[in-house]
Amino acid sequence: MAPPRFLVIAEGAFGTETSKTAVCAIRYVPERVAAVLDSRAAGRTAQDVLGFGGAIPVVGSLEAGLAHGPTALLVGIAPRGGRLPHEWRGWIAAALERGLDVWSGLHTRLGDDPELAARARAGGARLFDLRKPPDELTVSNGRARLVDALVVLTVGTDCNTGKMTAQVELLRGLASRGVRAKFVATGQTGILIAGGGVAVDAVPADFVGGATEQLVLAAAREADVVLVEGQGSLIHPGFSGVTLGLLHGAAPAAMILCHQASRRLIGQYYKGSAWVEIPPLAEVVRIYEQAAGWVSPSRVIGVALNTYDLAADAAAAAVERAARETGLPATDPVRFGAGPLVEAVAAAAETRRRARAGRRA
Amino acid sequence: MAPPRFLVIAEGAFGTETSKTAVCAIRYVPERVAAVLDSRAAGRTAQDVLGFGGAIPVVGSLEAGLAHGPTALLVGIAPRGGRLPHEWRGWIAAALERGLDVWSGLHTRLGDDPELAARARAGGARLFDLRKPPDELTVSNGRARLVDALVVLTVGTDCNTGKMTAQVELLRGLASRGVRAKFVATGQTGILIAGGGVAVDAVPADFVGGATEQLVLAAAREADVVLVEGQGSLIHPGFSGVTLGLLHGAAPAAMILCHQASRRLIGQYYKGSAWVEIPPLAEVVRIYEQAAGWVSPSRVIGVALNTYDLAADAAAAAVERAARETGLPATDPVRFGAGPLVEAVAAAAETRRRARAGRRA
Repeated sequence: MAPPRFLVIAEGAFGTETSKTAVCAIRYVPERVAAVLDSRAAGRTAQDVLGFGGAIPVVGSLEAGLAHGPTALLVGIAPRGGRLPHEWRGWIAAALERGLDVWSGLHTRLGDDPELAARARAGGARLFDLRKPPDELTVSNGRARLVDALVVLTVGTDCNTGKMTAQVELLRGLASRGVRAKFVATGQTGILIAGGGVAVDAVPADFVGGATEQLVLAAAREADVVLVEGQGSLIHPGFSGVTLGLLHGAAPAAMILCHQASRRLIGQYYKGSAWVEIPPLAEVVRIYEQAAGWVSPSRVIGVALNTYDLAADAAAAAVERAARETGLPATDPVRFGAGPLVEAVAAAAETRRRARAGRRA
Repeated sequence: MAPPRFLVIAEGAFGTETSKTAVCAIRYVPERVAAVLDSRAAGRTAQDVLGFGGAIPVVGSLEAGLAHGPTALLVGIAPRGGRLPHEWRGWIAAALERGLDVWSGLHTRLGDDPELAARARAGGARLFDLRKPPDELTVSNGRARLVDALVVLTVGTDCNTGKMTAQVELLRGLASRGVRAKFVATGQTGILIAGGGVAVDAVPADFVGGATEQLVLAAAREADVVLVEGQGSLIHPGFSGVTLGLLHGAAPAAMILCHQASRRLIGQYYKGSAWVEIPPLAEVVRIYEQAAGWVSPSRVIGVALNTYDLAADAAAAAVERAARETGLPATDPVRFGAGPLVEAVAAAAETRRRARAGRRA
């Protein structure tokens, strides 16, 4: 099928951290975004709001958005808990009736909603639930540690620190060096970008590792470096289980630690719920290496900082400090380029290739 | 409603570790078990096969089981992956048509099966899926660490090490000392015994901690000690995510480490998949205390061994060795009584009560 052109719903939130799916679609697949719906910012452009995204228009109503010729509606926010805001149902129903497909990364499955399903049938449209788990679920057993490819997992001090972004930037950087790399998406936005994957946070808990393992095994058949999108954080009181399941299922030989440089408390970007202090980065490195090592050894080989809310000199200082504190290559891959991380991953891949070739010889 | 009397399906597996649900029903609620269906052992009794359970008969066919007057069928095995063996569908359909309710702890939801649902309607029977997640799902945020009650979580070196059994024995022991304790079930067998709870391994991964937190908050309103059934193991390559989600959601002040004394590899009881060595118990204690401490501090205060497959002298030696290696009270609560663990929990509860009373004064 032809790639969709999206009208992206980000009502009341475009440009904030809850509009991650919308923002990432514009950053990584702007050619697929016809317009953004957010009545607060109607009349502006993506460039005005985000500082990138060019002339993609922000509109104030569904009708205005449809005038830009989308073929699909994308639910472009990822609210805590993943529920569908009640007032958006009307837009989704109207879009379906006009024959637009609807893509959603919410926990609420639109396809399970009898009314929306009926509207979709009436309009000849389809509902894509990016978070729907695969039908075949398995339990992981460390098989991913045995692949020839170098498996690299991004891990974080918190949610929403740039774990997907770091991998997409690494993918580009490795490709430009001629390294055969593949991106494994484990969240709804990553799936939108990659065109496949599994939203592991919506998988029944017993099967998070198994779903990840299956993705890694498949990707490793076609690549020398497998870049797995991480989720959550081992030190996050709400999502740590997802993170550990993903870590043991992916069984990565290498990890990249992702951190938003200005953040001090876990979940600080959610209102009123933050109380766990983020430890020094060197301590977080130790935590991930220990937890990985309970099943299969792994090393953190670089730090990806997110400095979007810092001035340029503060951002550069944060990168320098992260490198000094951890003794690892560090960068903000969006702001300063992924170079140091690309070097680190390419070197680790070469070391693994030689070690495995040596073992076979 | 009247408590059910079960015909327990354990075909081909009664007495083995995959028949955990059947065995636990007989150990803890024998008065609710009319008969066990396992054609391999037909004509024997639960006592013959298990060494306990008295005259509960084992039968070789559905018809023979129905002669013992059950009011419900219980799917009494918990196979890896939780799927319904194809050949059992016929028994379940036949039972439903005769008006017997069916209780199941499998991942496959019997209520979602149109054929079985139709048979249930035809027979006026009900399908209970013990693993069905609650409708309202939340994300945990360490609220359980703030309750007045002492929260005790059983943790393990592996799956199937006695984490539920230890809590049920502790519940009895504490009750006999007059301590107000409550058991929080997090797996299908525990739910069967407790008459409530959530099978956290079937909850979408984002909500494992939240489901646990809700159970703990509710139990803490009615008890001074909350005994939370643990699941899996932090060092299990397949299930570690469930374990960490449960640990951070329950936010226990105290943990009891459960271990099968004869086991050397994680998952050794599953065929051909075991490769992770179980570290020394003192190291496992450290792992759990560290992982809990990423969010909220916790101590392991005792060791519950499962020595069912050891001779009496070897079992006693294993208990003595576990106590020496960890410096903690140890016992096999089924074989030697839960006394040392009851003492440890009661003392920890008293210490917490005093500390919190002092803080208020």
